[in-house]
Amino acid sequence: MTVSNNTPVSGRFLTLEGGEGVGKSTNIQFITQLLKKQGIDCLVTREPGGTELAEKIRELLLSDHSEPVGELTELLLVFAARAQHLQQKIKPALAAGKWVLCDRFTDATFAYQGAGRGLNRDVIAALEALVQGELRPDLTVLLDIDPAIGLARAGQCGTPDRFEKEKLTFFERVRKGYQERADAEPGRFLVIDASAPLSEVQEEIERRLLLSLNLSDQP
Amino acid sequence: MTVSNNTPVSGRFLTLEGGEGVGKSTNIQFITQLLKKQGIDCLVTREPGGTELAEKIRELLLSDHSEPVGELTELLLVFAARAQHLQQKIKPALAAGKWVLCDRFTDATFAYQGAGRGLNRDVIAALEALVQGELRPDLTVLLDIDPAIGLARAGQCGTPDRFEKEKLTFFERVRKGYQERADAEPGRFLVIDASAPLSEVQEEIERRLLLSLNLSDQP
Ligand SMILES: Nc1ncnc2c1ncn2[C@@H]1O[C@H](COP(=O)(O)OP(=O)(O)OP(=O)(O)O)[C@@H](O)[C@H]1O
Ligand SMILES: Nc1ncnc2c1ncn2[C@@H]1O[C@H](COP(=O)(O)OP(=O)(O)OP(=O)(O)O)[C@@H](O)[C@H]1O
Ligand SMILES: [Mg+2]
Ligand SMILES: [Mg+2]
Repeated sequence: MTVSNNTPVSGRFLTLEGGEGVGKSTNIQFITQLLKKQGIDCLVTREPGGTELAEKIRELLLSDHSEPVGELTELLLVFAARAQHLQQKIKPALAAGKWVLCDRFTDATFAYQGAGRGLNRDVIAALEALVQGELRPDLTVLLDIDPAIGLARAGQCGTPDRFEKEKLTFFERVRKGYQERADAEPGRFLVIDASAPLSEVQEEIERRLLLSLNLSDQP
Repeated sequence: MTVSNNTPVSGRFLTLEGGEGVGKSTNIQFITQLLKKQGIDCLVTREPGGTELAEKIRELLLSDHSEPVGELTELLLVFAARAQHLQQKIKPALAAGKWVLCDRFTDATFAYQGAGRGLNRDVIAALEALVQGELRPDLTVLLDIDPAIGLARAGQCGTPDRFEKEKLTFFERVRKGYQERADAEPGRFLVIDASAPLSEVQEEIERRLLLSLNLSDQP
């Protein structure tokens, strides 16, 4: 079923998640094209970032500093960027009935700052409630891979940022953090094995995404 | 009574508060010298800022952006800077028994983001508890002045920052916000009339500060 441009559909909020080098940026383009073929234009954005100020906060988060960055500092910066992104870009788009496709969102905060850094999840959930109110992604594609493989893929693209310099054990906790969130909300998450060749990953994304969004002809 | 350097005293946390151009930067130097004469060396610092990363966050807070800065974004940036400042500078100094003298702290957040911007005070208090735990200033000098006078004083020093561009009614709410906090905690606040000539302001600060800190010979 194709949703034509003149069918009034309310906006949906889709997010793409996963560890380093798992293929988020590669596949967000693919998903955008996939939805375009269905007559759906997406606002494509990313976190941390997505607005001029939020991208400046991203820069503070990813770059090296002459001092250690506190875990709580990091968490509050992430949510500061998110508050700005939501207010300036995501919420207005959804309110106007647009679809939003975001490269990372709050699941990443639970995975990286929660499972990775060890911050209390109730604290993260309280900030989530403060900044997002009731807003949650409608659907989340989680690209899952052994972090050693993801890091090797990511390692081929430029100098590592402050996160990419973390140890493998950090990314193993991040992966587990994501998996736990997917297990807790199976209705929202599509977990995709991202270790397969790209063509297979994309076939799987296409099949399962269209099915979840009721855009598929399949039963 | 002079506290000599070999008397073991635990560190105290003093803050200096007030609206724009009220004389905080001028009088923080004066207080530093005053305590030095009593044998007390202070770590002098400021908010937002105080560490390399926190000063970068300050820069984001004070500079103009091509988009409106959300109130919640601003609040979370303030507390991100504070978390970093506390972890890197204030808490280690206090733990080592040093005195810390800080130009603005969380009372400014209640005054500017709370009373000024209209953000919910329970939200600010929740972030205060998250970032500071039990830590509160031991003593706060509040320089109070009609904001029209303070702004006129501040206006003589360079181009106005993002806050200094606010309307007078904003600063009237800020002043009221500060006064309410002082009224609620009279034991912690020294409220000083900052409209007097500088010499009188400083005599008043000296007399009342030494008395409050039990460093005075007066009854
Ligand atoms: N299924 C795949 N098989 C092999 N290589 C892949 C696959 N998917 C993506 N890649 C390659 O892995 C590298 C990282 O991909 P990409 O940048 O899309 O990951 P990412 O999840 O966005 O990474 P980051 O977390 O750094 O943003 C790229 O060189 C990409 O071409
Ligand atoms: N009591 C006073 N009478 C007259 N002028 C004063 C007095 N106190 C300070 N000033 C002058 O007012 C100006 C602002 O003072 P100062 O920079 O110390 O204020 P501030 O509270 O630090 O301002 P800001 O909020 O911009 O940091 C300076 O030029 C200073 O010399
Ligand atoms: Mg990417
Ligand atoms: Mg000053």
